[in-house]
Amino acid sequence: MSTTDAAGGDAYDALLDRYRRVSNVRHADGILMWDQQTKMPAGGTPARAEQRSTLSSLEHDLLTDGELGRLLEAVDEGGLDDAERAAVAEIRRQHERADRVPDELVADIARIESSAHETWVEAKADDDFDALAPTLERIVDRYRERADHLDSGKHPFEAIYGDSEPFLPISTVEEIFEDLKATLVPLVEEIRAAGELPTPFDGTYDERSQLALSEDALDRVGYDWTRGRLDTAAHPFTFGNQFDCRVTTRFDESDPLAGLTSTVHEFGHATYNLGLPRERYGTPLGESGSHGVHESQSRFFENHVGRSKPFWEGFVDTANDRLGSGASAEAAYAAVNRVKPDNRIRVEADELTYHLHILVRFETEKALLGGDIEVSEVPAMWNDKMEEYLGVRPETDSEGCLQDIHWTAGYLAAFQNYTVGSVLAAQLDAAMREELDDVDALIRDGEFGPVHEWLSENVHRHGRRYPTDELVAEATGEPLSADAFREYATAKFESLYGL
Amino acid sequence: MSTTDAAGGDAYDALLDRYRRVSNVRHADGILMWDQQTKMPAGGTPARAEQRSTLSSLEHDLLTDGELGRLLEAVDEGGLDDAERAAVAEIRRQHERADRVPDELVADIARIESSAHETWVEAKADDDFDALAPTLERIVDRYRERADHLDSGKHPFEAIYGDSEPFLPISTVEEIFEDLKATLVPLVEEIRAAGELPTPFDGTYDERSQLALSEDALDRVGYDWTRGRLDTAAHPFTFGNQFDCRVTTRFDESDPLAGLTSTVHEFGHATYNLGLPRERYGTPLGESGSHGVHESQSRFFENHVGRSKPFWEGFVDTANDRLGSGASAEAAYAAVNRVKPDNRIRVEADELTYHLHILVRFETEKALLGGDIEVSEVPAMWNDKMEEYLGVRPETDSEGCLQDIHWTAGYLAAFQNYTVGSVLAAQLDAAMREELDDVDALIRDGEFGPVHEWLSENVHRHGRRYPTDELVAEATGEPLSADAFREYATAKFESLYGL
Repeated sequence: MSTTDAAGGDAYDALLDRYRRVSNVRHADGILMWDQQTKMPAGGTPARAEQRSTLSSLEHDLLTDGELGRLLEAVDEGGLDDAERAAVAEIRRQHERADRVPDELVADIARIESSAHETWVEAKADDDFDALAPTLERIVDRYRERADHLDSGKHPFEAIYGDSEPFLPISTVEEIFEDLKATLVPLVEEIRAAGELPTPFDGTYDERSQLALSEDALDRVGYDWTRGRLDTAAHPFTFGNQFDCRVTTRFDESDPLAGLTSTVHEFGHATYNLGLPRERYGTPLGESGSHGVHESQSRFFENHVGRSKPFWEGFVDTANDRLGSGASAEAAYAAVNRVKPDNRIRVEADELTYHLHILVRFETEKALLGGDIEVSEVPAMWNDKMEEYLGVRPETDSEGCLQDIHWTAGYLAAFQNYTVGSVLAAQLDAAMREELDDVDALIRDGEFGPVHEWLSENVHRHGRRYPTDELVAEATGEPLSADAFREYATAKFESLYGL
Repeated sequence: MSTTDAAGGDAYDALLDRYRRVSNVRHADGILMWDQQTKMPAGGTPARAEQRSTLSSLEHDLLTDGELGRLLEAVDEGGLDDAERAAVAEIRRQHERADRVPDELVADIARIESSAHETWVEAKADDDFDALAPTLERIVDRYRERADHLDSGKHPFEAIYGDSEPFLPISTVEEIFEDLKATLVPLVEEIRAAGELPTPFDGTYDERSQLALSEDALDRVGYDWTRGRLDTAAHPFTFGNQFDCRVTTRFDESDPLAGLTSTVHEFGHATYNLGLPRERYGTPLGESGSHGVHESQSRFFENHVGRSKPFWEGFVDTANDRLGSGASAEAAYAAVNRVKPDNRIRVEADELTYHLHILVRFETEKALLGGDIEVSEVPAMWNDKMEEYLGVRPETDSEGCLQDIHWTAGYLAAFQNYTVGSVLAAQLDAAMREELDDVDALIRDGEFGPVHEWLSENVHRHGRRYPTDELVAEATGEPLSADAFREYATAKFESLYGL
């Protein structure tokens, strides 16, 4: 190895060491977040807010640190292999992105958001959009300013979009939505006309039985309990890394399928993190890809496993035991796939209407961040689009544009990632079925080993090595599109509803 | 306010802001520790070790930061009040102490300790002191080096002692031990001769009943569940602040009093943290005093409440309900105070022999850190002293010098704080009884309001404002000594054992 190589290599190691500190601070903050949402007594909020604010500011300091910038210049990429170069590129991307936004703006946004959540909770409870409007205006202003710093040549929505999906051209997302709109709007209309499917789970189910059932489901799909746990949270989420990745869920007494599918969804997120290479912990190659890719793993397990017929053929007896029900596999499969065209709440939506809820948000947010509409015009645009795509109009803003936590929690221009995840899940499912024998039998028999291996081989083990479009093309042989989802969903729901 | 004052005040505010970051990182690390010991799946260890190592290194960086040093010089103490000056003095003490130890030595100690715990666990399990000896030698070497950097003019034990008790002359501790030795060695001998007290709790008690009983006890002593919670841990501890302070405990199926007294002990720690001034969170005036003062609060509740006759007069019915027992208050009181002169394990020791176990450690550690003995001589010295003070000789090192977690966990020269806490608890109890009417009646009736108020007024609300000896003199009118403990313990145990 030449001297230059050695020096480049040293700089690479030093760079990774610096980045590991950033990563460890993020993981620590994640544990504080997990704790806050599952274990922390209510009184702990003020101190927790200060702790997380300090960690967030330290993360920013470490990422924009001059020494990290110097190491990025010093590293000799010629002496590195492809994977190492990808790691450097990702660290550079994060460093430059953080560096572009002035510290005062970062602090200002943090200050606004620290009280915005509370304002949103109250406005939603009171169905009072005007109470949220001034806060939302400040948030939109600051994010437009942030977008300008990030990339003044881009539409502000696209610049912010890069926060959660740095690796996929936004034009791909726009094409996906055009395609879904054309397919789903008429399909949902046909389903509305066909009438509601029955459910065999129409009783009341206590939380203890539902928790046991969720544990059974996690056992069946292969959750590694030595590296995970299951808790309840008001807003289910998954947090962790390749050593410790935890699932949360929530239960509805009148709908045991809601909690169960939520658990299986979160398991998909967990299995991604748990499948990241252990020896790469704390570096980009040991971190998961974009939000959309992450969501593809949860949607794969939620929809292509948990909402599949073979899964229910293998699992319905367990469900009946836990719930005291007497459902057939057919009936359970139909019940877990009921389409609810009149539902106005995104998190309660089915597999089809879900994307129309997202579309409403995608278009409203683009108009808002682009300056095409004022904050005061949000409720009207939201309701008009609900009517246009779903044929229902929210009667209140609480069940309309006030329903989501995202805008006051710092997740702007992020909703579309859920749809990206769903269409990618369908595309991965199709590709997996070309390579593996009889995936249905594996799912029915609870033999998930080959499924995990395929996902690990094609997605998990890569960490953040490839941009989303390259990862998708490599795993599926096709660019990302809504094709596989459209075929899967049309076939499934036409059959279920006898269309 | 003059310009100088304003500048001094600005520097003071900036200094506190800097210190709050140190404090928030410590609190974040504390949550990671709590999680690790109560909730983390076993597989999470490698990532957690890295996260905590990063936070610990960030804490050190923030505390030794040049800007913090500059602010300490810039602050105009003339423009500050007494409390503010105390805060500055405490920040200065921590900054200078951290600054004296070279970064490489800090990192080296962290490296040794990261694997030392595992080595200790194995050596203890195998009863193999030689397997621990090389690690212990490295630890002792590095701590002697550390002591030399901290204060080369002091005995190494005394220099390290300042880590956990910066505010009490070590000569006071030495006097306390001389006094206790003279009192306890003959008293324990008399008790051994008198024979064992009976217990009405000699069955098997499941964990669920014991947990419910611990919750009852916490209700009775006044735990604020909106700012706390109760979990189990292998080594019970308390962690938190004035907004969120959590108790852990553990249960022994054959001894329900062990778990109960452990819970009440930890409650004492929690009530101290929960009584710190909220508006001072993150600053020295919002942090608890030394380890010994903290232990005084836990020992007060464990011994002067949980092991008192009036407590059992008020609580025995609840205990009988939960445990299905039929104990009288007298019998329960006697059982919870059984002295075990033949016990060799510190954490299972009673209120009297406990301090003789500590004395063995205090003297052995002093000899070891002072260079008077080699690591290889520790087992013999330990066993000789056990025989001298307790009249029993450990038959193995596992039940001798390998029993404690401390030396491989970075707690050197710290055992004596437990004894300081006990004697201070007795001194506070005596002072409280001079000021409050009929404390026994309050404890019997579960009316803990005035007790909490007295402790808050005299201890909690001050945060870290006063050195330990000033705090004690202010609260009790006397310098710290073993007098109150000696009187309390002699009267109590002479009566219990009919001596």
